[in-house]
Amino acid sequence: MSRPFIFPYLAQLATAAAGRRMPAAAYVIVAIGLIALLVLSVDPVYEAASYWVEAALSACLAFFAIEWLARLVRAVRARRGRAYALSGGGLVDAVAALAVPVAIVGGADIRSAWLLGVFWLLKLVPGIPGLRRLRRVLVLESGPLISVLVLFLMVLSFASVAVHVLERAVQPVAFGSLPATLWWAVVTLTTVGYGDVVPVTPLGRLVAAIVMICGLGVFGLWTGILATGFAAETRRDNFLKTWALVSRVPFFAALGPAAIADVTHMLRTMDLPPRAMIVRKGQPGDCMYFIAAGEVEVDLPGKKVRLGEGAFFGEMALLGNRQRSANISTTQLSKLLVLDLVDFHVLMARHPDLAETIDTEARRRALENK
Amino acid sequence: MSRPFIFPYLAQLATAAAGRRMPAAAYVIVAIGLIALLVLSVDPVYEAASYWVEAALSACLAFFAIEWLARLVRAVRARRGRAYALSGGGLVDAVAALAVPVAIVGGADIRSAWLLGVFWLLKLVPGIPGLRRLRRVLVLESGPLISVLVLFLMVLSFASVAVHVLERAVQPVAFGSLPATLWWAVVTLTTVGYGDVVPVTPLGRLVAAIVMICGLGVFGLWTGILATGFAAETRRDNFLKTWALVSRVPFFAALGPAAIADVTHMLRTMDLPPRAMIVRKGQPGDCMYFIAAGEVEVDLPGKKVRLGEGAFFGEMALLGNRQRSANISTTQLSKLLVLDLVDFHVLMARHPDLAETIDTEARRRALENK
Amino acid sequence: MSRPFIFPYLAQLATAAAGRRMPAAAYVIVAIGLIALLVLSVDPVYEAASYWVEAALSACLAFFAIEWLARLVRAVRARRGRAYALSGGGLVDAVAALAVPVAIVGGADIRSAWLLGVFWLLKLVPGIPGLRRLRRVLVLESGPLISVLVLFLMVLSFASVAVHVLERAVQPVAFGSLPATLWWAVVTLTTVGYGDVVPVTPLGRLVAAIVMICGLGVFGLWTGILATGFAAETRRDNFLKTWALVSRVPFFAALGPAAIADVTHMLRTMDLPPRAMIVRKGQPGDCMYFIAAGEVEVDLPGKKVRLGEGAFFGEMALLGNRQRSANISTTQLSKLLVLDLVDFHVLMARHPDLAETIDTEARRRALENK
Amino acid sequence: MSRPFIFPYLAQLATAAAGRRMPAAAYVIVAIGLIALLVLSVDPVYEAASYWVEAALSACLAFFAIEWLARLVRAVRARRGRAYALSGGGLVDAVAALAVPVAIVGGADIRSAWLLGVFWLLKLVPGIPGLRRLRRVLVLESGPLISVLVLFLMVLSFASVAVHVLERAVQPVAFGSLPATLWWAVVTLTTVGYGDVVPVTPLGRLVAAIVMICGLGVFGLWTGILATGFAAETRRDNFLKTWALVSRVPFFAALGPAAIADVTHMLRTMDLPPRAMIVRKGQPGDCMYFIAAGEVEVDLPGKKVRLGEGAFFGEMALLGNRQRSANISTTQLSKLLVLDLVDFHVLMARHPDLAETIDTEARRRALENK
Repeated sequence: MSRPFIFPYLAQLATAAAGRRMPAAAYVIVAIGLIALLVLSVDPVYEAASYWVEAALSACLAFFAIEWLARLVRAVRARRGRAYALSGGGLVDAVAALAVPVAIVGGADIRSAWLLGVFWLLKLVPGIPGLRRLRRVLVLESGPLISVLVLFLMVLSFASVAVHVLERAVQPVAFGSLPATLWWAVVTLTTVGYGDVVPVTPLGRLVAAIVMICGLGVFGLWTGILATGFAAETRRDNFLKTWALVSRVPFFAALGPAAIADVTHMLRTMDLPPRAMIVRKGQPGDCMYFIAAGEVEVDLPGKKVRLGEGAFFGEMALLGNRQRSANISTTQLSKLLVLDLVDFHVLMARHPDLAETIDTEARRRALENK
Repeated sequence: MSRPFIFPYLAQLATAAAGRRMPAAAYVIVAIGLIALLVLSVDPVYEAASYWVEAALSACLAFFAIEWLARLVRAVRARRGRAYALSGGGLVDAVAALAVPVAIVGGADIRSAWLLGVFWLLKLVPGIPGLRRLRRVLVLESGPLISVLVLFLMVLSFASVAVHVLERAVQPVAFGSLPATLWWAVVTLTTVGYGDVVPVTPLGRLVAAIVMICGLGVFGLWTGILATGFAAETRRDNFLKTWALVSRVPFFAALGPAAIADVTHMLRTMDLPPRAMIVRKGQPGDCMYFIAAGEVEVDLPGKKVRLGEGAFFGEMALLGNRQRSANISTTQLSKLLVLDLVDFHVLMARHPDLAETIDTEARRRALENK
Repeated sequence: MSRPFIFPYLAQLATAAAGRRMPAAAYVIVAIGLIALLVLSVDPVYEAASYWVEAALSACLAFFAIEWLARLVRAVRARRGRAYALSGGGLVDAVAALAVPVAIVGGADIRSAWLLGVFWLLKLVPGIPGLRRLRRVLVLESGPLISVLVLFLMVLSFASVAVHVLERAVQPVAFGSLPATLWWAVVTLTTVGYGDVVPVTPLGRLVAAIVMICGLGVFGLWTGILATGFAAETRRDNFLKTWALVSRVPFFAALGPAAIADVTHMLRTMDLPPRAMIVRKGQPGDCMYFIAAGEVEVDLPGKKVRLGEGAFFGEMALLGNRQRSANISTTQLSKLLVLDLVDFHVLMARHPDLAETIDTEARRRALENK
Repeated sequence: MSRPFIFPYLAQLATAAAGRRMPAAAYVIVAIGLIALLVLSVDPVYEAASYWVEAALSACLAFFAIEWLARLVRAVRARRGRAYALSGGGLVDAVAALAVPVAIVGGADIRSAWLLGVFWLLKLVPGIPGLRRLRRVLVLESGPLISVLVLFLMVLSFASVAVHVLERAVQPVAFGSLPATLWWAVVTLTTVGYGDVVPVTPLGRLVAAIVMICGLGVFGLWTGILATGFAAETRRDNFLKTWALVSRVPFFAALGPAAIADVTHMLRTMDLPPRAMIVRKGQPGDCMYFIAAGEVEVDLPGKKVRLGEGAFFGEMALLGNRQRSANISTTQLSKLLVLDLVDFHVLMARHPDLAETIDTEARRRALENK
């Protein structure tokens, strides 16, 4: 009943969505689709509301199908049809649009076919923040990670053979074959420990205890490697992000590239929504701010001053006066660069000209606000 | 019987407590309340001692109610009534005072209503040491953490669908619907592994094994991210704390801001109770100390010398003589700045004037104590 | 039937394989052997295909035996026979060749004897990437790791005695002796938690809860130690690898050893297969590349330029122009050294002569490609 | 029968052991005692060999009692009787000697009293390598660790109340009281997951799933904190150890304290048994060695040269010639300081006089060995 009314809107939405990479609409559609999938699999609920559930799923599928077609048409017109179809995003779009219909055509039971809708989740991948960083860590540290994985498999194999030999006489079902024993070994070595299969002979338990302690070691190595890689990657990532922002602040423009690298190492980025209070009057201050994007409003007694891209504030707190002297808040979505107290002084010592600029400005402002 | 006698004292205590943010009294009251809650829920004990349990709970509730009212009145008088009521602390106070009565009025069974007393625990939050640091780490690393969480949810979804399809025929109760299978997936992926629901088909077990190994990966990533963030935040935190203390030591006052930043990077803070032995005669020494707050007593042969805020000691051990020459202990709660051997020499090399001051003082003391 | 035909080829392969340390053939043979082992242990499958399984296992064994003999003969001819036989690799080769036959001669049941084929896995050890690094970490951090292990054993012992005393009256089978209680303690402290043996008395559960929380602590310490050691070892390893490569790039030859150490700290190594796209036209660039081995092709408008060992590219993106100006891909297996944006500027500032070389070359190329 | 013969020897041994802090004998005695304890608790074995088990336990107890008395007498004679009795070591000695007899006198069943022999384990504590470092990490990071522990307890409490309310109707035994539910919560939050108590209602499972994911977070924070603290402490520890060793090498004696701090940062310590091969002829070399203690033998063609404390070797490999030119092995237990390739060059650049000394020595040796 409701489907005919929704479809035109969906088609319109999907065509619009196809233009941008990851529209908010798609998030909502994926969420609806997954909830519908959950409901679909629960027999009593499905029997009571099968019409609505299938309507929701069909709508989702229609959205993804139209989105994919719209993107394909646009790509073909731009003569990049093949590039799109074979790119990661294009394949995900295709799978989201085709998996369910292909399964139905291929003879699968309709309710089972809908379960392939779980592939819609892949649509969220480009929207995950920091996924690129995770991937880089996994790639850079792949050597030691694979090495730990191989160790893991070797412990698994030796443990399986040993426990198989020790336990097969007593528990022929659980430990009677190597594949069955491998199941026990994986469950134990990952410290999941279901307890469905447990060695009972003293020697079997001794081997199992050693396997468990090895499990701790594997955990530790794995985590240690990832932590190391992550620390290195985070340093690199922050640097690149900040570098791009520093270049927008005129204040630093006069510095040579080595000094900009210096400054970039010191600054942290901060994203703020509109009307966020950055500095509160009377609070202790331990950093100064540069505006990379957006605008802030300084709430001075009797007047309000607005500072835009490239301006800086909060420097007075660092020049001896540790108390903030005014409320400062954003007026719009802003990106600030934060310079901590310690780095501020190191920077001033290394670049006396910068120190002078800040000092002059601070004195000018202090006079002005008297 | 005892209630009428306790109440006036409680009211007095609560009014006093309302003035300061987290009085020791509140810790005791929360502890009593929680023990009473534990007892309340055990049927045989409750039946034997219901009067005393309810008396304890009522007293706790009364304390929190009076404390909240006292704070509210004080805030309203200071014209910050609304600010207090809507602040984090104000909301916690309100919930602690109102949750149980509102539930009782709302028709809940009295014994169940008391269980809402668990919200009293929130009163402890401002007293947790280092919570601010934890929160900052979680905020700064929220990008990668959310990214891992999304990966976690995706593995969860794909694993659930796969195992649901593979196991539903054999175990219709445990794996017959997606929500039921999700329960299994969460239990497995977090490596909890209750074992109440376990796949039994070979393919189901293969998917489960992959899920478990992914669980190790999620653990590793999660920990790696937190460790990285924590290391960065700890560095920053220690710096700010030490900076504030360094500025109180006259010894460093002559240094410029860049040199103070240098020194601050090198010092570690140490809080000591009264009568704590800092340096033991004859022991090897590998650091010197600056007194940021408090006082220490040097136990020289024949006399006792007291050193107050801004003084330093232990420098002789670093100037060639590796054996401590006297017992030194605190006379009151003190905060010391510790300079390790290695940093001491780097500092001396970079700031020859500092080196001279310490050298002069060390020679003077050595002469004096001959 | 098929064995006689395969054997001559196997013997030929094994003799060839014996020359090199880890031929691809051995990987395949080990994989086949392990799969055959898995199948061997499953009764119904084995009964149906015992001939083929045993043929596969015999072929694997023959391969390893011939390989070992060929290596032994070669070593004896080179007068290093004893050195080889007692080296790690020699012992592994011997065990792989002899374990199964010795077990059969020793009277073991044939199907059980084949299980010793799991030792073939040891053949993979020299091929594991990064294993040397793992071993070094374990050796360097052995002090703290053993310390944690001893703590682990002490918690285990105290917990076992306490729970044994508290639970033996109620559960005489599971907690009636210390060895039985130790099994519970290991399962709990490693957070595996089978649930086959669980304390039921209130005090027993309290002790168990403390043991579990200690388990978290052991995990944390273990991981912390390994992460610390791993970070240090990774730094050292990367340095040595890069140092060897830097010396092959003529560009850095003029630098003194201290400057080469400087450069080496900054570069990361990257291995690329043939026809891998390194730089894509129009993408933002944040690093430059030096060719340590191999060759790349620059796809300029109208012509293709090839750069060989010792050349560098991508420097324009770092000198102000953040957009890559051409596609660059490898023509063969290549090893590149990557210099990140930040390090590039630091390096330029410290070594002005390097800066000049890059600048001259960049200008020359820009002119040429106009 | 055998007891009368062993006792005199034991007494002699214990008196000797009392002199030194942790004699090898005590390790053996503790091991024997623990094995006897294990055997004691297994009914069938105990019944068969009760005489021998009790003889072993009595011998251990006698050893510890005599050791304690001998130490006490010695301390009293040196007028430090009270200091020893109340020190950590003294208390452990007293507990090891008195726990079992006191329990027997106190009326405990003899077999249960022997179980207190587990306190003998405390005797091993001073011998654990790196324990001091672990303790320092726990002390320095106690702030954040307690903070995580409090978070852990809060999650535990809220989860227990929620699941108690949701599950008590369905599972009155397992979730009928808060203490019982707390047991479930601890088992779940530490990811042990016995599975003896499992929520079954949909809402209960939802809360449980959130608790499990929180468990991952607690793990991550805990590990992150410990890893951070451990890295800092390891740096500090290595520095102090190396500093003490560097001062024994005459080569570095001419350097000022700042330069020694520099060198100390770069060197790693290495303990070697006698007859250990340090450098193998023809292998690639990436470090040089200083002898802090012990002696090495250089196996030159035709002659063997011995180098003692303060000498250095392996420097030729760093001065252009990457191949080791001779076998070098220890002649006795030795402590070496290792200088890696990279640090070698940095050091040479910073301290040209050091570079000259090494260069002169290297040329002298090269000439000599022609």
